[in-house]
Amino acid sequence: MSESPRSHRLLFTDLGREVEGLDGETILHAARRAGVRVVGACGGRGTCGSCMVRIAQGRIDTHAGEDLSRHHRWRRACQARIRGDCTIQIAPRSLAPVVRAEVGNRGELPPAMNPCITAQEVSVPEASLADPRGDWERVAAALNVHALPPNPEALLGLPPLLRAHGWSVRVRQGPHGVLGFAAPGRVECGLAVDLGTTNMAAFLVRLDTGERLASLGIENPQAAWGADLISRINHAIQATSGAQELRRAVLQGLNALARDLVQAVGVQLGDVVDAVVCGNTAMHHLLAGLPVSQLGRAPFVPAVCAQMSPTAAELGLELAPGARVHLVPNIGGFVGGDHVAALLASEEHWQGRCCLVMDIGTNTEISLVHAGGIQSVSCPSGPALEGGHVSCGMRAAIGAIERVRVEAERLVVSTIGNTKPVGLCGSGVLDTMAALLEAGMMERGGRLRNGHPDVHETGGLRYARLATDIHFTQHDVRAVQLAKSAIRTGTDLLLRQSGLDAARLDRIIIAGAFGAYLSVERAIVIGLLPDLPPQRYLQVGNAAGSGVCRMLVNRAARERARTIAATARYLELSSIADFQQHFLRNIALTSQQHERRAS
Amino acid sequence: MSESPRSHRLLFTDLGREVEGLDGETILHAARRAGVRVVGACGGRGTCGSCMVRIAQGRIDTHAGEDLSRHHRWRRACQARIRGDCTIQIAPRSLAPVVRAEVGNRGELPPAMNPCITAQEVSVPEASLADPRGDWERVAAALNVHALPPNPEALLGLPPLLRAHGWSVRVRQGPHGVLGFAAPGRVECGLAVDLGTTNMAAFLVRLDTGERLASLGIENPQAAWGADLISRINHAIQATSGAQELRRAVLQGLNALARDLVQAVGVQLGDVVDAVVCGNTAMHHLLAGLPVSQLGRAPFVPAVCAQMSPTAAELGLELAPGARVHLVPNIGGFVGGDHVAALLASEEHWQGRCCLVMDIGTNTEISLVHAGGIQSVSCPSGPALEGGHVSCGMRAAIGAIERVRVEAERLVVSTIGNTKPVGLCGSGVLDTMAALLEAGMMERGGRLRNGHPDVHETGGLRYARLATDIHFTQHDVRAVQLAKSAIRTGTDLLLRQSGLDAARLDRIIIAGAFGAYLSVERAIVIGLLPDLPPQRYLQVGNAAGSGVCRMLVNRAARERARTIAATARYLELSSIADFQQHFLRNIALTSQQHERRAS
Repeated sequence: MSESPRSHRLLFTDLGREVEGLDGETILHAARRAGVRVVGACGGRGTCGSCMVRIAQGRIDTHAGEDLSRHHRWRRACQARIRGDCTIQIAPRSLAPVVRAEVGNRGELPPAMNPCITAQEVSVPEASLADPRGDWERVAAALNVHALPPNPEALLGLPPLLRAHGWSVRVRQGPHGVLGFAAPGRVECGLAVDLGTTNMAAFLVRLDTGERLASLGIENPQAAWGADLISRINHAIQATSGAQELRRAVLQGLNALARDLVQAVGVQLGDVVDAVVCGNTAMHHLLAGLPVSQLGRAPFVPAVCAQMSPTAAELGLELAPGARVHLVPNIGGFVGGDHVAALLASEEHWQGRCCLVMDIGTNTEISLVHAGGIQSVSCPSGPALEGGHVSCGMRAAIGAIERVRVEAERLVVSTIGNTKPVGLCGSGVLDTMAALLEAGMMERGGRLRNGHPDVHETGGLRYARLATDIHFTQHDVRAVQLAKSAIRTGTDLLLRQSGLDAARLDRIIIAGAFGAYLSVERAIVIGLLPDLPPQRYLQVGNAAGSGVCRMLVNRAARERARTIAATARYLELSSIADFQQHFLRNIALTSQQHERRAS
Repeated sequence: MSESPRSHRLLFTDLGREVEGLDGETILHAARRAGVRVVGACGGRGTCGSCMVRIAQGRIDTHAGEDLSRHHRWRRACQARIRGDCTIQIAPRSLAPVVRAEVGNRGELPPAMNPCITAQEVSVPEASLADPRGDWERVAAALNVHALPPNPEALLGLPPLLRAHGWSVRVRQGPHGVLGFAAPGRVECGLAVDLGTTNMAAFLVRLDTGERLASLGIENPQAAWGADLISRINHAIQATSGAQELRRAVLQGLNALARDLVQAVGVQLGDVVDAVVCGNTAMHHLLAGLPVSQLGRAPFVPAVCAQMSPTAAELGLELAPGARVHLVPNIGGFVGGDHVAALLASEEHWQGRCCLVMDIGTNTEISLVHAGGIQSVSCPSGPALEGGHVSCGMRAAIGAIERVRVEAERLVVSTIGNTKPVGLCGSGVLDTMAALLEAGMMERGGRLRNGHPDVHETGGLRYARLATDIHFTQHDVRAVQLAKSAIRTGTDLLLRQSGLDAARLDRIIIAGAFGAYLSVERAIVIGLLPDLPPQRYLQVGNAAGSGVCRMLVNRAARERARTIAATARYLELSSIADFQQHFLRNIALTSQQHERRAS
């Protein structure tokens, strides 16, 4: 075994957080591994300048080995290598923003309210020698129900609260009885989390009104151990304490999200009395500390699909004492609670129709709703379509190429914010692929063609030049082709298993952050999506996020999610005899339109 | 604040435990503070030689400052002061013994069986690509009930168990649903604990048969912070992290008891799936981490009286994942679950009678059962009656003076094991008091009389000499008088509040380990107990321990305990106007017989 590098302490003063960094690791990497919300749009390539920090104290060096005496200048966190304990300030614009109080919830109807946790305030007679009942007994009598005391950690707040507030107290109750106590006048909040392989998004919601107080997204800190599910599962299985490392990382991220959200809106973690978390089965298992070895190899069996509601303390989340975390149930294989949440949130669009619901991400889940049933598959699409793991990929941020068109057989790019291009985000990746085909720079098989003024070759690697220092290489093309084939093969086989032709689909619902910005037209050009009239497509954005927020404030929605998960039938693609042939054939960038023209 | 002393690591090889010792602390003290079961019968005075250890490695010194190079000789742990990390061997006879398999349960009827946790073994179809259901879903279908999955920590055992045992597994179920899993053929055990102020006793019980597999008693490690409730409550309130220190200490003790018990009978902590713990209200609160400041001052209000069943993990006990710890409900003030357990276990003796139930200990609880009701008081009797905090006090062990009689006006002692006297145990303390009166060595007011050949005085302190180096001082007399008065005042006022005379009592049930060996006749002589015919007295031993064992294997017993606790009315003695006068009057060592003769 190789010796592990020395570790140093990094104190981020803006967030009041101290995390561990390894000697030689960049500040950006260490920060993300610990869920510190530093923006790093270009993924650490040093091109976007979105991760600016100032070293107030400590020792670093850079790839350039530059003079390090000047502590007080701003520098890129992705270029600063940790060489000692550091005290670090993050530039305000480099902090991933907490988005406050979305008004009107992006046009969605306000959710029907039926929260799991409710509160009521009671006043009780003061204790005296003549009435020496226990504090709990006093409150239980005032509640006028046969209530059991909450767990000791929640109960310990009662005596000081009663004595500080003139023998009045706010009692929080849930399906398991009394959950805890608070000072009169406080509010109850809940945390809804969409735990993705690449990104995690959290919403802080008022439980009495359903109002989204704030939201915040960061990279899943587990990304430090691999971009896709299989790398993480392998790390969990093979490395000593690998599973614990991954679990700790995601918990650090979730706790950082919760802390940063409550700070931003001025409530306390003790007011966060409920939580709902959805994720694919692997994220679910790694968070809950469940074994993944049986999930990582055929027949890909989850330890559990059913919903669970462990306490936050059991899970390792720092919320109100006694708060529970509702883990959205899984369907099977890698099709997890995030897909269930997306199905729940988009139900009005698919119910009673013949419909595909796709959640495109690092892992893509697809469900076919047909004849009263739901069949679901999972496709390992990888992060390429989201701009991850392509050579100049970046997040959808200022400077990201989002559109690529062809003018006079040359590529013309436009960026978010109309600034100098610094990289390529997900929608730009898809546009590039379609433009390369349109400009004749790429064969349908995916090979970049020599002889075009924008196609170059260095060290045997061919690439298309999009802008100064922004390339799209043959490797990038291949990564997108694999993603495209994975998703398309899933779609095709799902339809075939039900004896359906794509044309029979009334509607294709595309969920997910990437799916919200995807150009359906371009996706059809490269054959990612079936060639159907545009009006049959519906892009619903982060449906999983909407779904968990709904479940947070509505018990019936949790019950509905349970039914959806129990109804949906998981189909393991690799169990289909000619899966492999389908997959290989779908690597070609052929639309059905093109096929029709060709035949 | 004074600087805290350096700490050293003590490894007890026989028990595989490493604990922390403070520089200059004795090995015995450090061991007890951590719940290491070293016998120390004389309480560390160096007289009994029951705490023999050998320092295999490390640095100590002694009060004598002797040569310390000779590591390999046996020495008294109470005389060895820690000066560095040590590796320590405990003499086999100095390990508090785990008592195996009591046969016939000391004449008690075998308990009616109706345990909270039951087990069944199921076989499920092997997972395959055609049947990729989750592991839990497979088991839930085989159980043929609508079961919810257990908590993640319990669930994580399922996948490896199914695969290691040919898709069969043992499923443990309780009132909250499925609790966890085990390999086929294992047994389920439970832990019953009587958590006293001075001593804690634990019983390991088979849940299917009710058989007591083993029992073990150690000193409550909290004794390091004070002998009585009030000292501990004060430490919890006044010292920084005082409450946490006390909580950690009792948890260390309980975990050590559990570990030593399962090791002795060859089961695993993972097989301990249920627990019942009783203690007085302060012990209960300090274990559960509940605040005690409101309990420590008038009107002496518990945070909670109702029963609670937190998970072992929430409480800090290392039992099977998902196991719960049933905390026996309290009555009020300091009258806690231990008294409820004693009432439960002795119910056949008091039901339908006019009866006193006394649990004599460092804190003494007394209930008057009369006319269908139960009234309870608590008396701070202190440890003197148990041989604690008297100058030559010790546990009831070899060499302890247990009987003192008067022959020709001189004191004659006899010891446990008929060996050379090394100290005085509880029954010896009571005998001494009665003998001092009988021999005319002490006035009824408690003053030792000059002029008797066995009464001496050194440095202004008068004492009676019982044997070589074994004295009973004027201070000791006063400590016993305070204990006697506390208990007798409780008895008197309890009777008076119900308008009863002691003669109306059909029966007086004396519970508790000390109560089992107490001479009722001597107790009457000094006025500790009412002067009633001996046949009205019943000594039932550790009734609290019997009560918790019964609750462990019978759900109805828990329900009955709940009813007893809810029915009993707590009476706060200090709320009675002339409590103080009564207390002062009862300090005199006057039996009613004597009073009658005097009047």
